[in-house]
Amino acid sequence: MNNFQYFTPTKVIFGKDTESQAGDLVKEQKGTKVLVHYGTGSVKRSGLLDRVYASLDKAGIPYVSLGGVVPNPRLSMVYKGIELCKKEDVDFILAVGGGSAIDSAKAIAYGLKYDGDVWDLYLKKEVPQDAMPLGVILTIAATGSEMSNSSVITNEEGWLKRGLNHDISRPRFAIMNPELTYTLPEYQTMSGCTDIMMHTMERYFSHEMDTDLTDYLAEGLLKAVMHAAKVLLTKPEDYDARAEILWAGSLSHNGLTGCGRLGDWACHQLEHELGGMFDVAHGAGLAAVWGSWARYVYKSDVARFAKFAVNVMGIPYDYADPEKTALEGIEALENFFRSIHMPVSISELGVELNDDQIKELAHKCSFMDTRTIGGIQKLDKKDIAEIYRMAK
Amino acid sequence: MNNFQYFTPTKVIFGKDTESQAGDLVKEQKGTKVLVHYGTGSVKRSGLLDRVYASLDKAGIPYVSLGGVVPNPRLSMVYKGIELCKKEDVDFILAVGGGSAIDSAKAIAYGLKYDGDVWDLYLKKEVPQDAMPLGVILTIAATGSEMSNSSVITNEEGWLKRGLNHDISRPRFAIMNPELTYTLPEYQTMSGCTDIMMHTMERYFSHEMDTDLTDYLAEGLLKAVMHAAKVLLTKPEDYDARAEILWAGSLSHNGLTGCGRLGDWACHQLEHELGGMFDVAHGAGLAAVWGSWARYVYKSDVARFAKFAVNVMGIPYDYADPEKTALEGIEALENFFRSIHMPVSISELGVELNDDQIKELAHKCSFMDTRTIGGIQKLDKKDIAEIYRMAK
Repeated sequence: MNNFQYFTPTKVIFGKDTESQAGDLVKEQKGTKVLVHYGTGSVKRSGLLDRVYASLDKAGIPYVSLGGVVPNPRLSMVYKGIELCKKEDVDFILAVGGGSAIDSAKAIAYGLKYDGDVWDLYLKKEVPQDAMPLGVILTIAATGSEMSNSSVITNEEGWLKRGLNHDISRPRFAIMNPELTYTLPEYQTMSGCTDIMMHTMERYFSHEMDTDLTDYLAEGLLKAVMHAAKVLLTKPEDYDARAEILWAGSLSHNGLTGCGRLGDWACHQLEHELGGMFDVAHGAGLAAVWGSWARYVYKSDVARFAKFAVNVMGIPYDYADPEKTALEGIEALENFFRSIHMPVSISELGVELNDDQIKELAHKCSFMDTRTIGGIQKLDKKDIAEIYRMAK
Repeated sequence: MNNFQYFTPTKVIFGKDTESQAGDLVKEQKGTKVLVHYGTGSVKRSGLLDRVYASLDKAGIPYVSLGGVVPNPRLSMVYKGIELCKKEDVDFILAVGGGSAIDSAKAIAYGLKYDGDVWDLYLKKEVPQDAMPLGVILTIAATGSEMSNSSVITNEEGWLKRGLNHDISRPRFAIMNPELTYTLPEYQTMSGCTDIMMHTMERYFSHEMDTDLTDYLAEGLLKAVMHAAKVLLTKPEDYDARAEILWAGSLSHNGLTGCGRLGDWACHQLEHELGGMFDVAHGAGLAAVWGSWARYVYKSDVARFAKFAVNVMGIPYDYADPEKTALEGIEALENFFRSIHMPVSISELGVELNDDQIKELAHKCSFMDTRTIGGIQKLDKKDIAEIYRMAK
């Protein structure tokens, strides 16, 4: 088992009607003026925003609002948020929505405590020293940003998508009411489930041995999400299934399912470039590349892929031919993705890649041929191009 | 699934040589003068204390020391710590040891921010409003106090053992180096493993349905601990097995394995009285009463006990007779306790209970016949006496 740090200070308030506690929670965090930051309108139409405003009013906390965050959140919106917060003397940010609103809020929080251009932090030119405190009211089970230290922002100039991980951006609290996620369309729900699974799988597929507890937690989480996803296909308003994936989303990316392991993260890197170039749903993009990645790398750790096949996918272990078990596990997960109407190829995303595009994706993904990606197997520009080709 | 809160702000620093970071971590928490609080000498003999002092010195942080905390930590020591900290202007407490040192440190932390007698907080006469910040260097995998909000103190006057749970006492950081636990005698190691398992089982055995993820996490944790305990019987210096139980100890009592469930906690109440009266090792006391408790209550939720039997103990499910499966699971866990040399009756603790003692234990445990204990089945004074009798 590797040495590790585990730090998840976010106070989770989980369950029915919990959004009514927003005002009190901001007060507990000593916020005196709030930016309410949200997406493209569904939180307005559903009446959620009004309930949040009422809760802030009741707690006597003034606020300003900034909506319009889009999926793959944009740097231009971050700049707008920073400007507004400075003008209005905001000292607490409340993100209402999913990963996009939260990631945008984190970028604003960094920017408010940094003198230069916040994009420099995402380009790793400087390390953030501080961030404005923020809280979250979550409406989508997916990215885990509500408890994670991650924020991913897309710069429209060059459509470069870059992530920044730092503990000072972890939200102070996260309000999670499964009922708020009832109206999410099936495609987004299943894309979210895929993202949740992949956050754990990226941690699961690496070479470290002897992490029994972490492995059990990871495997259990994957099984719980797969079961709930199937339930939600026919019963999108099943409270318990919504609750399972909402909570799994947080635990999948707060570090828990990777303690003592190094992780892989190649599929996320492969998808980030796809998302940057074609603006596809993140989870769907992950599903589209996973099978090809797995078939490309599984030989570097047949035992690990076989363990996944048996413990997660329920494949009987073939003692005479573990490689067969490993491959059956990969196929079983692809079949699961199909069953929840997720793509298992890039063309099923509606993107027909040509050779030049594959070259460009591989070039960007390898940081212009200056880095490898992946843990279970290091992948250079040539490998990356081959996986995009297999996943076409 | 029930509504729940989950709040685990403790920063965990896990792995080899991590105790050398103590000074920097205190500094990060803005501690300027430290009380180093520890037990009865093993941390001194092993050289750990010297390394901790060196780390504090290196960080330029002055400290005073108070050793001598005993198992089932005493109120008199807490008073001594409060007095010393006040005299020395201490603003950060560093517990070095196991649950006893940490619980004692938490009580001192409460006392330093409370004008009255700290014991009144444990008697629930008042609710704590604040606590001095504390950190932990853990040397025993057992109570989970390093991440929990719990502290249990014994008042020598009347040998009353009482617990206090409040989030403000959660440690700011916990340093966990599995190597520091190598020299622990087998009986204490196995008693710790039992305590860890029981923290999860107390949460597992209650009536709530539809907590798939929490159940998977709980079941996985139990399996990981059982496997590691068996390894440690013959290889007490197996790093990975020590690491598994050390990390499991924290996760077992930080709230994770009970999210969405109410829990039972009867066995802990039964053991607290035993521990108060006879000063037995906490984990061993839990093992001694669990089987009798389980046989007394299992009929109130046969499905739950059968699920435990199948998913944790690996018993094949008897579709025609689930009750048989449930009972086989109870027997299997008792056999596991036997295999790690834990008692499965009170007499095996070296305590021969007579009828008067059983009456007194039941009287105290039911708070002089004013409360019931347990969740899966409410137990009054009569039930409690019967379980002590069965467990004799």
